[in-house]
Amino acid sequence: MNILESLEWRYASKRMNGQRVPSDKVERILEAIRLAPSSMGLQPYTVLVIEDEELKKQIRPIAMDQPQIEESSHLLVFAAWDDITPDQIEEYIQHAAEVRNMPAEQLLDFKNILLGIAERNTQEQNFNWAARQAYIAFGVGLVAAATEQVDATPMEGFDAAALDKLLKLNEKGLRSVTLLPLGYRDAENDWLAALPKVRRQREKFIIEA
Amino acid sequence: MNILESLEWRYASKRMNGQRVPSDKVERILEAIRLAPSSMGLQPYTVLVIEDEELKKQIRPIAMDQPQIEESSHLLVFAAWDDITPDQIEEYIQHAAEVRNMPAEQLLDFKNILLGIAERNTQEQNFNWAARQAYIAFGVGLVAAATEQVDATPMEGFDAAALDKLLKLNEKGLRSVTLLPLGYRDAENDWLAALPKVRRQREKFIIEA
Repeated sequence: MNILESLEWRYASKRMNGQRVPSDKVERILEAIRLAPSSMGLQPYTVLVIEDEELKKQIRPIAMDQPQIEESSHLLVFAAWDDITPDQIEEYIQHAAEVRNMPAEQLLDFKNILLGIAERNTQEQNFNWAARQAYIAFGVGLVAAATEQVDATPMEGFDAAALDKLLKLNEKGLRSVTLLPLGYRDAENDWLAALPKVRRQREKFIIEA
Repeated sequence: MNILESLEWRYASKRMNGQRVPSDKVERILEAIRLAPSSMGLQPYTVLVIEDEELKKQIRPIAMDQPQIEESSHLLVFAAWDDITPDQIEEYIQHAAEVRNMPAEQLLDFKNILLGIAERNTQEQNFNWAARQAYIAFGVGLVAAATEQVDATPMEGFDAAALDKLLKLNEKGLRSVTLLPLGYRDAENDWLAALPKVRRQREKFIIEA
């Protein structure tokens, strides 16, 4: 199944059947997310993987009681950095220098650009920038799941502050931005499963400028 | 090439060679972007496709003089709605009813949820929400380009207000959020082409909660 067929196949499952997604599929989806590009390559976000049934049970009421939270196999939480700090930038630069086998000094100009952006912005602006980057990875993860024939329901409908508290994300310098339960559709009990996909018509969606 | 191999292959090309991307490839990339999911299915963004050399020439200085703007084959501009209005919601509901062959009245509850969100938020909040949705589609487009072996450089580094003015996006109720030049890498002249990809280590990037 190519990427377009996969995107046609996928939909935001409202019910899942509890079947476990094999670990190798989950790993490939996570790896695609990890490989997603981000502004300046910073990847200012983290992905939490939740399999624990008890924890999912606690999250469900925080997420508008959506059943997929519990019916999913793995629940991914995309959490963006709540700020961009000099320490985080330094760690990134050190890591980049190591991967590219060059002295970190060679990345000084690049580092100063990053520091300049982070310092110029308020914490909330830095978080919002980080959140947008997380959405790129979220999009990549959605495609990756579809190509693995794994259902995934993109979710913004949850109480982020309550989830952050439950998962102690604040202590980690993170704020949750989106959820992505992975699993398998329960087509019989999902009213959405049989309905045709609605997308804006090409002629309205694309402008040839 | 599967999706992981495609993501390993891709990188943010700093130089492109001007070669034209065949129309069928561009169409498949645009179709993947069109199929991307968005919150409530609203797709509050539009993609502009720019092939015109003169227009690309005018955009280049607005985009920090990045050469890929001119060296690309097609320049995609992701533009989010500058607000979410009742008219846009009504158009979406009518379209959804048509595609799903049901009376629009059946979607009244859904429509009221959308209207509630749009009215509760300020224009800037609605725009930011729309922008995040555009980033999902942006992520999907990046993967789609890679699977077509088409190079694409995700760009946030441009003067959005100046670009909006040049492309008259304000008149269309749009604000540019990201650029995606499509083309083919000029590996010989691109310092980044041969460097290994830097990504946060799995053990730091993923948290098993």
